[in-house]
Amino acid sequence: MGGFFGVASRTDCVSDVFYGTDYHSHLGTRRGGMVTTSDTGFKRSIHDISNSPFRTKFEDELPRHAGNLGLGVISDYEDQPLLIRSHHGVYALVTVGRVNNLDRLVRDALTRRGTHLSETKGTEENPTEVVATLINQQDSLLDGIRWAQRAIHGSCSLLLLTPDAIYAARDRLGRTPTVIGRKDGAFCVALESSALPNLGYEPVRDLGPGEIVRVTPDGVEVLEPPGDHLQICSFLWIYYGYPASSYEGINTESARNRCGQALARNHDVEADWVAGIPDSGIGHAIGYATEAGIPYRRPFVKYTPTWPRSFMPQEQRVRDLVASMKLIPIRDLIDGKRLLFCEDSIVRGTQLRDIIRRTFDCGARQVHMRPACPPLMHGCPYLNFSRSKSELDLAARRAVKELEGDASSRLDEYADASSDRYARMVQFIGQQLGLTTLRYQTLPDMVAAIGLPREKLCTYCWNGEALFEEV
Amino acid sequence: MGGFFGVASRTDCVSDVFYGTDYHSHLGTRRGGMVTTSDTGFKRSIHDISNSPFRTKFEDELPRHAGNLGLGVISDYEDQPLLIRSHHGVYALVTVGRVNNLDRLVRDALTRRGTHLSETKGTEENPTEVVATLINQQDSLLDGIRWAQRAIHGSCSLLLLTPDAIYAARDRLGRTPTVIGRKDGAFCVALESSALPNLGYEPVRDLGPGEIVRVTPDGVEVLEPPGDHLQICSFLWIYYGYPASSYEGINTESARNRCGQALARNHDVEADWVAGIPDSGIGHAIGYATEAGIPYRRPFVKYTPTWPRSFMPQEQRVRDLVASMKLIPIRDLIDGKRLLFCEDSIVRGTQLRDIIRRTFDCGARQVHMRPACPPLMHGCPYLNFSRSKSELDLAARRAVKELEGDASSRLDEYADASSDRYARMVQFIGQQLGLTTLRYQTLPDMVAAIGLPREKLCTYCWNGEALFEEV
Amino acid sequence: MGGFFGVASRTDCVSDVFYGTDYHSHLGTRRGGMVTTSDTGFKRSIHDISNSPFRTKFEDELPRHAGNLGLGVISDYEDQPLLIRSHHGVYALVTVGRVNNLDRLVRDALTRRGTHLSETKGTEENPTEVVATLINQQDSLLDGIRWAQRAIHGSCSLLLLTPDAIYAARDRLGRTPTVIGRKDGAFCVALESSALPNLGYEPVRDLGPGEIVRVTPDGVEVLEPPGDHLQICSFLWIYYGYPASSYEGINTESARNRCGQALARNHDVEADWVAGIPDSGIGHAIGYATEAGIPYRRPFVKYTPTWPRSFMPQEQRVRDLVASMKLIPIRDLIDGKRLLFCEDSIVRGTQLRDIIRRTFDCGARQVHMRPACPPLMHGCPYLNFSRSKSELDLAARRAVKELEGDASSRLDEYADASSDRYARMVQFIGQQLGLTTLRYQTLPDMVAAIGLPREKLCTYCWNGEALFEEV
Amino acid sequence: MGGFFGVASRTDCVSDVFYGTDYHSHLGTRRGGMVTTSDTGFKRSIHDISNSPFRTKFEDELPRHAGNLGLGVISDYEDQPLLIRSHHGVYALVTVGRVNNLDRLVRDALTRRGTHLSETKGTEENPTEVVATLINQQDSLLDGIRWAQRAIHGSCSLLLLTPDAIYAARDRLGRTPTVIGRKDGAFCVALESSALPNLGYEPVRDLGPGEIVRVTPDGVEVLEPPGDHLQICSFLWIYYGYPASSYEGINTESARNRCGQALARNHDVEADWVAGIPDSGIGHAIGYATEAGIPYRRPFVKYTPTWPRSFMPQEQRVRDLVASMKLIPIRDLIDGKRLLFCEDSIVRGTQLRDIIRRTFDCGARQVHMRPACPPLMHGCPYLNFSRSKSELDLAARRAVKELEGDASSRLDEYADASSDRYARMVQFIGQQLGLTTLRYQTLPDMVAAIGLPREKLCTYCWNGEALFEEV
Repeated sequence: MGGFFGVASRTDCVSDVFYGTDYHSHLGTRRGGMVTTSDTGFKRSIHDISNSPFRTKFEDELPRHAGNLGLGVISDYEDQPLLIRSHHGVYALVTVGRVNNLDRLVRDALTRRGTHLSETKGTEENPTEVVATLINQQDSLLDGIRWAQRAIHGSCSLLLLTPDAIYAARDRLGRTPTVIGRKDGAFCVALESSALPNLGYEPVRDLGPGEIVRVTPDGVEVLEPPGDHLQICSFLWIYYGYPASSYEGINTESARNRCGQALARNHDVEADWVAGIPDSGIGHAIGYATEAGIPYRRPFVKYTPTWPRSFMPQEQRVRDLVASMKLIPIRDLIDGKRLLFCEDSIVRGTQLRDIIRRTFDCGARQVHMRPACPPLMHGCPYLNFSRSKSELDLAARRAVKELEGDASSRLDEYADASSDRYARMVQFIGQQLGLTTLRYQTLPDMVAAIGLPREKLCTYCWNGEALFEEV
Repeated sequence: MGGFFGVASRTDCVSDVFYGTDYHSHLGTRRGGMVTTSDTGFKRSIHDISNSPFRTKFEDELPRHAGNLGLGVISDYEDQPLLIRSHHGVYALVTVGRVNNLDRLVRDALTRRGTHLSETKGTEENPTEVVATLINQQDSLLDGIRWAQRAIHGSCSLLLLTPDAIYAARDRLGRTPTVIGRKDGAFCVALESSALPNLGYEPVRDLGPGEIVRVTPDGVEVLEPPGDHLQICSFLWIYYGYPASSYEGINTESARNRCGQALARNHDVEADWVAGIPDSGIGHAIGYATEAGIPYRRPFVKYTPTWPRSFMPQEQRVRDLVASMKLIPIRDLIDGKRLLFCEDSIVRGTQLRDIIRRTFDCGARQVHMRPACPPLMHGCPYLNFSRSKSELDLAARRAVKELEGDASSRLDEYADASSDRYARMVQFIGQQLGLTTLRYQTLPDMVAAIGLPREKLCTYCWNGEALFEEV
Repeated sequence: MGGFFGVASRTDCVSDVFYGTDYHSHLGTRRGGMVTTSDTGFKRSIHDISNSPFRTKFEDELPRHAGNLGLGVISDYEDQPLLIRSHHGVYALVTVGRVNNLDRLVRDALTRRGTHLSETKGTEENPTEVVATLINQQDSLLDGIRWAQRAIHGSCSLLLLTPDAIYAARDRLGRTPTVIGRKDGAFCVALESSALPNLGYEPVRDLGPGEIVRVTPDGVEVLEPPGDHLQICSFLWIYYGYPASSYEGINTESARNRCGQALARNHDVEADWVAGIPDSGIGHAIGYATEAGIPYRRPFVKYTPTWPRSFMPQEQRVRDLVASMKLIPIRDLIDGKRLLFCEDSIVRGTQLRDIIRRTFDCGARQVHMRPACPPLMHGCPYLNFSRSKSELDLAARRAVKELEGDASSRLDEYADASSDRYARMVQFIGQQLGLTTLRYQTLPDMVAAIGLPREKLCTYCWNGEALFEEV
Repeated sequence: MGGFFGVASRTDCVSDVFYGTDYHSHLGTRRGGMVTTSDTGFKRSIHDISNSPFRTKFEDELPRHAGNLGLGVISDYEDQPLLIRSHHGVYALVTVGRVNNLDRLVRDALTRRGTHLSETKGTEENPTEVVATLINQQDSLLDGIRWAQRAIHGSCSLLLLTPDAIYAARDRLGRTPTVIGRKDGAFCVALESSALPNLGYEPVRDLGPGEIVRVTPDGVEVLEPPGDHLQICSFLWIYYGYPASSYEGINTESARNRCGQALARNHDVEADWVAGIPDSGIGHAIGYATEAGIPYRRPFVKYTPTWPRSFMPQEQRVRDLVASMKLIPIRDLIDGKRLLFCEDSIVRGTQLRDIIRRTFDCGARQVHMRPACPPLMHGCPYLNFSRSKSELDLAARRAVKELEGDASSRLDEYADASSDRYARMVQFIGQQLGLTTLRYQTLPDMVAAIGLPREKLCTYCWNGEALFEEV
């Protein structure tokens, strides 16, 4: 994924940019960056944050930053922010999203003599530099951003810093959120609204899909009004959004509580405790427990002092180890008990199977699992939050393969919770995971729990529907 | 505080020592250390962990460690482990505790010609080196450890590594816990039993007070049987012990749940949500919510990705900032609501007042506070978990000062929950904090929730009683 | 200045690139870089070398480099090598030289929509990226390099690495040297031929002015033959070239020996010792001593263990301190003695005045100075080896200002060693420096000592003559 | 070896300690350390300097140091300075020398109950901590230092810093030098007098053998007068002392010049150039060239920018590589020439053979070698400047082994320059090295060139004579 935070202030913005970016740390594990601009020009820092928190890496450099305008970014892949000089002058750029037609855009750009990409690492282009190239193909920054939004297949939200202002653009269909905040003498732009309250910002409003604004210490000017169609990622509420954030006015923790409540309304088993798989499962479990009238307990606690981050290393083997090490079981709350767990979703199922096995090893009598969303049937083509090598790794698709001999057969039917095939698939997955019972949330219940009209939510992962765009 | 972890294995112990020590990271913020012993001698590493997690600092050095026996330590103050050569041969030493008569012990030791301390930093002695000096004053390691335990005022649990074995000694009155674990081909010794399950160790038993054992890959030999009197710190269950740990067979999270239940049985206010102040308040709140039948919710979430540690910087000003930044409010769960918070305890109250103020700022209608233990009246003279400059900083003592003009007046009466003075003190504190209502746990309820006989628990912080030792 | 080293080998080139680049460390103090290419693409490293030697910074990364083709660079200013993707494909680029019309080239390039510069630091362009932009404006790499050479005012030698070959181009008038070396199975390209022997390379030949070649493990193909006019920097032999290097077939140390001999042939004072100001003055002094029959001695030794580099920090104040600290006087060789020093040149004279003062402080009876070249009258517009803020800092120009009231008056006359004005200027400088006598080398003697035809040498610093180019 | 530098000043001493210690960098490659004392106690820093210069490692920490008294040390082995608390109070200690009876001293010390060593690394004691233990065995610091000097077999010069003064003690027979310097308001103590002039200190006098003084900002008080017998290491002047230093009033560079002159007086071959093997051979060569009337030239230059240090890595394989890489040949000064080299000494001969081979590879017609001292027959038992695993590695001893079948046979005769056996040994070594001619300095000529009475110089390396001490 990735996240960004920008500030336009009447006073020095460095501290706000630093802490505001840090509050996006759960969205990326590889690179962090900051840029500020003042009379003496732009000052940029980029660091590897794969081994050490953002704050540790950047705090020594804060004295070298100064100015009233600045950006920060957490990135899972490329170096950001870039400092670009073009016929638009000098600007800094950060992006969040996924460019599916990167090769084509590079090829098109480089046919123009004189154009180059220099942020190349070995053989891979820096997608943010490619976005800059698109912006530079037009006469004005605004036209350039518009053109980039049109040319990119996938999604691209961005912040662009000039010596005078921050240009903020939400991706064309609003797949990722972008929120504006305000306090006395300053405006901020963030992906996560949870970055606002501790820095004193009040949320003003979310940008609409494809909206482009120009932010200065004096206000927010709309340069391009929002488009008609919203396709915000449902998974923000289910899994990776921060509990304290709201998107389209809907708070994540509350939506998770409602998800759990919805699951509980279909409650059909007896259990001693309801519990959540940390971190995202907790909000779901709390809602479930309340609704079902079963005590909420914590049979597993996450060892946050040293396994702090929600997002995982890219290498699967290390991800599994980390996942296993970070959760510590509490035998006293497990032994002899019937446990019902809420989980955000089942992706590959590998880590979950390990947790279930350990739960039984600690003496559990029954383990029930209630994922907060339907079975994942498709990889996400719009965002970069997991670079799974193959969507055939998905637990549901492996079940389909086992049952049909072909992992892509009759997917629509398998995605239909009222079908026999769906029932057999769920049964198969539950057996693979060693569960006592497994019951997924239905798509309508999930949509209702989030609370947005269904046509505004992207549900591609579950039903493969892409309302307004060809994949 | 500090924590330690030792392994005696038939195979290489490095990975277990590394991860087992890391699982004690919540107990210290300054120094981490590891030592292993093999045919090629001892290999030691010590690093500053104030800015970066234990694992980050030590993983690069793991290839340089080897051997079947090893120790690790998390320390709030001094460099550890020390490598000591004396007439006992070479050994490594780690300690957890507090030596109140350090100056006297140093003076006594240095009257002997030939003795020196070299781990001095500027003008402060390294307490662990002083413990080594005591051990070296006797003919055998065992006699030396016995002598150290007798000579030290305060407390001192320790692990001592020779080329052949680990000597483990729990402090004389068992104020800090020490647990033995076992898996196929290996034994471990830990302060926190939560370090055991993910490394495959089963808890065998706790050492008794003053017990000294010798641990090898083949077994655990008792060198000094446990003493008669136990005075384990009650605060382990209330505040700083890890939820997944058990001490004297009693799990922390469960004890917290019972604490919350006890508080709820005296329930007298209406509330929309029950919530816990992270981290320790959560276990208490979960118990309260269940007992009271009020939904548990999370109006504040801790931003663990980059504010991971429970323990705070030593400098108070930075502690307050960190405390404020790490909790993010969720306005949707606060606005217009009546909130009841469980908190482990109220120490100075500064951070809590800030949280309460922010809760009202987010629109809360009422804020009720239910600390899981009685008012703290005395600083701890036995452990180092807070180096508060003065116990007069305690919220309760400041209230006494306000009410009596003297912070040390009639403390026994103020500690008596049935007295008028107690009532006035609580009312005063609640007003200072800006609370709608404040009601503390009583000492008997707290003791009952923990579940050990009262005479085995140290309750000095609350009632100033020291059963078996002069302070 | 800066220096570069490239290798095309049938076997792995990493070690040769590493050591070969390291042997250019005397040419730059700020940035070092390496790039290699193999089946898995390009691998690049760039580090700050201002505080630590090149080898220290890069040796940890050598295992990550691999391949048969590679480049390294020592740079005084910008980050290099750049990795550029353009319509030419991906290539790496390093340059040495000075682009006087940088602003104009940037302006021209950026009028083309789609073109950008991303290696900008704050407000300054990276000159090497600008060179890449020029190369990308043509249809082929060869045409691009030709165009860059034509478009740039100043000078630009470069190495360009593709997946298949190294393109090497010497600047249009051959101001900086570029030499080809060969050993069994490999070719190298270097700025300093002194990098060759310890890596087993034999020098093959120097590139001619403006020559462009393509180097592979199999040979060197001439793509653009050398031009007619050579204007190689005389100062290479006098001051900053490495003693073990040869340029145009003429060894530096030998040329310095001849310079000293030429000075001695005009010998007119008695002296006890002849000595050189380290480092460059040593070669001159050795020649002088032999010719004059006066013993060579070392009254000052350079403390190379920790003041190793010949080139100085950019900040003048620190340069002066370093210059003062790195030379240690030997009083036994100074006290009561008449000393004659050879020095490469007198630039500002500040450091020299300090050395002279210290020499007299140590008891010298007389101090004579014999610079190996004429008075420096002009700053260099072609190379970047000193970024003196103003040529009015030059000792000779300050003398002119003192004598004429205008630092730019009658410079031709002052540059004429037979004129009265020249004599008065030298007398003034000698008095300023506190010398017993001062006598400069004449331009004809210096040219003869170097041994190239005068029209092939750039002598702009001394006489302001630019034979083949407008400044 | 190692070196030290201490300052007692009326004003802040930090800068002087920093630079003065740095000027001892040629004496050690592993550890550097600094300690200062002020009202707020002692402040100590120790760093690994094996990869990076002393200054680079310590300059960031200078702001944390303060005070009027301080010490610094360059150490080849152990961590220093140590901070020791004992019945003497707190003091810091640095030592230079070699403790041959370390095991015995440790055993004796540790029989005293209560004594320990904590600076142990794995299985090796820190010799400086053992010296501290000896000092602590007496009633006063002075008695302790006296006792340490008596008890140690080998040698031990030391600086000891208390809050009030620096105690300086030269080893009992004055094998290593210790010099006192003075400037306005400050005194310094150094091993190398070359550290003095650039910091403004004038040399006052050398300490005598075994002398102990107490240095304060106000003066130098003699606590223990010098002993009668001096056995200063001759090798200081021949090889490892810094050219700008003087010991016993005799300057190193001058002594080397005289050594070369003495060699030249026995001149019997024709040569085109005289040259020195850098670094130490240069001073010898300069003297030879003057005396013989043959031009001095530099056919090899040392690449000091990145191979700065004189002392070598401890691992022999790396030493050989470094030795080979750091010298760059100048073919123009070698090809077709008859070269006569002066070298300080021939130890193993491995590196020298490589240089000779390379010289012939560059086209030399003849290579003559003139070591400035006799053949090395014995390893040094008094100082730590080379930890050669076996003295049988010495080129001379390998020759004896080849000629006699036993490397220890008839050593006295082989050490006698007038014997046939000596002649055969020299011939053998010359052939092994591939030399045209080889002629060593004689012991009387070397002693005369140094200029001290023979009985004051240790010549053990050459003739195995130990005048005042059992080995």
